[in-house]
Amino acid sequence: MKLRFTKMQGLGNDFVVLDGFSQSLSLDRQQLLKLGDRHFGVGCDQILLVEQPHHPDADFRYRIFNGGDGGEVEHCGNGARCFVRFVRERGLTGKRSIKVETAKGLITLEMGENGLVTVDMGAPRFAPAEIPFVADADTVIHSLQVGDRQVEIGVVSMGNPHAVQLVADIDQAAVAQDGPLIEGHGRFPQRVNAGFMQVLNRGEIRLRVYERGAGETLACGTGACAAVVSGIRRQLLDHSVKVHTHGGELAIRWQGEGHPVWMTGPAVTVFEGEIEL
Amino acid sequence: MKLRFTKMQGLGNDFVVLDGFSQSLSLDRQQLLKLGDRHFGVGCDQILLVEQPHHPDADFRYRIFNGGDGGEVEHCGNGARCFVRFVRERGLTGKRSIKVETAKGLITLEMGENGLVTVDMGAPRFAPAEIPFVADADTVIHSLQVGDRQVEIGVVSMGNPHAVQLVADIDQAAVAQDGPLIEGHGRFPQRVNAGFMQVLNRGEIRLRVYERGAGETLACGTGACAAVVSGIRRQLLDHSVKVHTHGGELAIRWQGEGHPVWMTGPAVTVFEGEIEL
Repeated sequence: MKLRFTKMQGLGNDFVVLDGFSQSLSLDRQQLLKLGDRHFGVGCDQILLVEQPHHPDADFRYRIFNGGDGGEVEHCGNGARCFVRFVRERGLTGKRSIKVETAKGLITLEMGENGLVTVDMGAPRFAPAEIPFVADADTVIHSLQVGDRQVEIGVVSMGNPHAVQLVADIDQAAVAQDGPLIEGHGRFPQRVNAGFMQVLNRGEIRLRVYERGAGETLACGTGACAAVVSGIRRQLLDHSVKVHTHGGELAIRWQGEGHPVWMTGPAVTVFEGEIEL
Repeated sequence: MKLRFTKMQGLGNDFVVLDGFSQSLSLDRQQLLKLGDRHFGVGCDQILLVEQPHHPDADFRYRIFNGGDGGEVEHCGNGARCFVRFVRERGLTGKRSIKVETAKGLITLEMGENGLVTVDMGAPRFAPAEIPFVADADTVIHSLQVGDRQVEIGVVSMGNPHAVQLVADIDQAAVAQDGPLIEGHGRFPQRVNAGFMQVLNRGEIRLRVYERGAGETLACGTGACAAVVSGIRRQLLDHSVKVHTHGGELAIRWQGEGHPVWMTGPAVTVFEGEIEL
């Protein structure tokens, strides 16, 4: 079968996006793996399928598969921004506020006048059992034994678990050494994404994230949300924060406990293609 | 500018191939780097430009640029096979024997009835000064100090330098450990590609190559030639040998000293695309 696709990226996190309105998208695992393969296929971090929704209130349904193993995964901030740009550029909708059915439920995405896309990333959770994290209480800072040192972390679930620590200089942070030790730490039964945050001022941070199962990546959307939320809880940051990552910039807003986190950032169409699968 | 391209691969070595007959190909370094970038562009090991020849006897001219640094490079066996499939599939020629102008001079490429492409890889050279390699004489086997061991290597230039050693089992070979030690060994002033060859029988080998500047790759065309030539000189192999690599299979033929090496293998069109540069 011939398949048309669009290659997109958000902060270097890259996607093969497929339009299920103009073509059939019944792909098996082998076809997903081929799309994801950077040498024998197209190559991408994840594959986004844009389809007719089942839910009556939704404009679209979208599903996300890992390019590396073909497994279906949940919400991804960088992918959500690409999704919005895709349906707008292809004329699949004229709306600026788009309701989307995902594996995690309905989410709302906003296309700004500036071309940037804002995504409701949901409300953060802090209770140890919800991370999950082995601790007695929900405190703003937990002490974690990493190697022979104690590291102060904030723990945050953005649907996935995050452990955020402050560092003096992101360029000097021991991401490659400490990242795997934190990711696989016994107190995180489902492992964890390890964030390293340098606070520049109350409205600006620099961030590197060692992602669970992936190692350090160019940019992690939920990691940026978790870092800002953790910084606000520590009273180091205001409610609206610019996040600098190796892949580019994100803007994160959070009004506090019980409110969702809003993430704004770029999404870029890289090229159009057609592949025989 | 909008650019149409074809993504191809030969044994997992992958290429963005550009047709300079139907579009202008005056690309600057930044555009080449974007084409080569796997997250922000198309992504490939190398970019192939197919153009009108200057030489009166040539059917085509083709130039090769590294996807990683945009630098122009010389002959590449996997790329040459993709080039032949490309000009045949696009109907740019009906010939089966194609004369091509490269940075290294004229080469002849043959498209077989079976769809496989045979490439004249040139005659191997063994004189230490031509590798270059620091040694007193041109012997079939040289002893090289690697860490605290002596390794027996054959040295071969296929336009680029190779050091080939025999191993009992390719899966157990210390490619990651010894590869960099050999690549940067003081007796190879321009560094070297380190080959690890397991002889299965007189007509069949398994091969892994630690490539100069690139680390271990899925398949190295000149490395396969060098390994077979070295094995023939050691009287372990016949004149026609099947080479198994992680990326797939190649057939190598060599009649002996003074003759060119012929390499036969697959070339695959992966997808067609269009990108705004």
